Amino acid sequence: MTHFLLLVLDLLGTFVFALSGALTGVRRQLDLFGVLVLSFAAGNAGGITRDLLIGATPPAAIADWRYLAVSMLAGIVTFYRYALIERLKNPVQLSDAAGLALFAVAGAQKALAHGLNPAMAALLGMLTGVGGGILRDVLVTQIPTVLRADLYAVAALAGAAIVVAGDLLQVPPAVSTLAGAAVCFGLRFMAIRYGWHLPRAATGGQEPPA
Amino acid sequence: MTHFLLLVLDLLGTFVFALSGALTGVRRQLDLFGVLVLSFAAGNAGGITRDLLIGATPPAAIADWRYLAVSMLAGIVTFYRYALIERLKNPVQLSDAAGLALFAVAGAQKALAHGLNPAMAALLGMLTGVGGGILRDVLVTQIPTVLRADLYAVAALAGAAIVVAGDLLQVPPAVSTLAGAAVCFGLRFMAIRYGWHLPRAATGGQEPPA
Amino acid sequence: MTHFLLLVLDLLGTFVFALSGALTGVRRQLDLFGVLVLSFAAGNAGGITRDLLIGATPPAAIADWRYLAVSMLAGIVTFYRYALIERLKNPVQLSDAAGLALFAVAGAQKALAHGLNPAMAALLGMLTGVGGGILRDVLVTQIPTVLRADLYAVAALAGAAIVVAGDLLQVPPAVSTLAGAAVCFGLRFMAIRYGWHLPRAATGGQEPPA
Repeated sequence: MTHFLLLVLDLLGTFVFALSGALTGVRRQLDLFGVLVLSFAAGNAGGITRDLLIGATPPAAIADWRYLAVSMLAGIVTFYRYALIERLKNPVQLSDAAGLALFAVAGAQKALAHGLNPAMAALLGMLTGVGGGILRDVLVTQIPTVLRADLYAVAALAGAAIVVAGDLLQVPPAVSTLAGAAVCFGLRFMAIRYGWHLPRAATGGQEPPA
Repeated sequence: MTHFLLLVLDLLGTFVFALSGALTGVRRQLDLFGVLVLSFAAGNAGGITRDLLIGATPPAAIADWRYLAVSMLAGIVTFYRYALIERLKNPVQLSDAAGLALFAVAGAQKALAHGLNPAMAALLGMLTGVGGGILRDVLVTQIPTVLRADLYAVAALAGAAIVVAGDLLQVPPAVSTLAGAAVCFGLRFMAIRYGWHLPRAATGGQEPPA
Repeated sequence: MTHFLLLVLDLLGTFVFALSGALTGVRRQLDLFGVLVLSFAAGNAGGITRDLLIGATPPAAIADWRYLAVSMLAGIVTFYRYALIERLKNPVQLSDAAGLALFAVAGAQKALAHGLNPAMAALLGMLTGVGGGILRDVLVTQIPTVLRADLYAVAALAGAAIVVAGDLLQVPPAVSTLAGAAVCFGLRFMAIRYGWHLPRAATGGQEPPA
């Protein structure tokens, strides 16, 4: 897979995630600037956090103006065509699953390339995928969906883990990347379709604090 | 403009922003420590985030004790003279606009000096100005005012953009810095005075989730 | 004190803090993944933030898999044995005080070793101790307990300050470390036992916004 193709896929993932941020912003009645901030945060916070943690400064999303451009584009389209984007909910969810798959495998590869140990490389891949959604939700004071949603982070972790395992077993990167992305996308797709989710702990009927 | 003058202005901006953090802390009934944390966060989080993103560690606000000192001073004054500071609301709002102007232009210059591309340098200038207020609000679980307020971030972005444009056009830095700060301050002042604000998206009457 | 002993104590502190994160996650009805995220965040966010601020990337908690392992262990135990851990509340509070003491002194030493000035080294020690709890609470959209709790951060700051003072006075590190940890633990223990807390500002009866 060429470097150029990877960049295109990365920007596509950013665009899709930025859409989810912009939708949240419009729903919470933020102004245009707020919507653009949520677009950028949802599209790039995962990758930025990963880059800060592995010491790759300035983060790609800051150094390369194209990440900013696609994030703004997603925000502006959503702001002025909100009804349209809302109606596209199914396509949006599918491309979100695709974005998650891509970010997870790309994030794991970048972490491996910076010499992280396998367990942390897999986790940083997952973080690349879920970080944007976490910041998006924290900014509108909502408990991050990913902490409660059906197999969202687990799908990302599975995809990233496959990349890391492929690296340990010296499988060609293109193969493990494709396999990881396919597994992540597949798991997420099945979770949406069949409502798969992780267990919650038994708290003996105790209510969460308000 | 000498280095010394810049430092004085930077510390003044920190002090004013720290006041806004301390006021929030007292209003939310935090204890003395909580008020001081909000003072420091509001006064310094924007600059710290910028420095982390451009790889300038340790951030100036951490390496130089004077940022801490003026933040604590603002917190302590507000804590023990709350009624007085509340009564000064108009002067506080004006100095906040001045702080915003200063942080935006200084942040953009620092980002340019670290070789960021023009678009990101302008955004990092804006982030320097608004980052502190965002963390302040997140810490008390409030949707950041800046995501909804009248031209706050836009004023900062305009000021930062003028600095960046001046750099591209090789205008002397002192000139573009003054022009950028004046535009930011002026925009913010007019927004407060006339209630200027950005549009919100039409959501077809849909209410935001509670 | 040998390097090995320090590592063991650091991992113990991480485990205890991770327990507090996991308890919060279970109480807020997060799923298994959410509980593990809160475990890791509560156990490691303080140290990670400190390492990012002093430029020590990748942070120890990311580079060394054992921090992850003990965090996951705490999360899994809490998830499947929630009732048991809740019943252990007193022991948990005591070990939390021990974890705070350890993180505060270790954090201050690491900051000194990276050449921070004394005031910031003490504050970074405190941040190491309280950062995890702040992120834990922000993620579940709660105002961080530490901003309102009885002498939590002050105990950490006192412990860290003793380490820094010892460094300035050239006391042997083992002595100031033990003294700092003892003071932090003692203060926190007394605060729990006698309900010591910091003053809140007089707001003239004004209610905090909802």
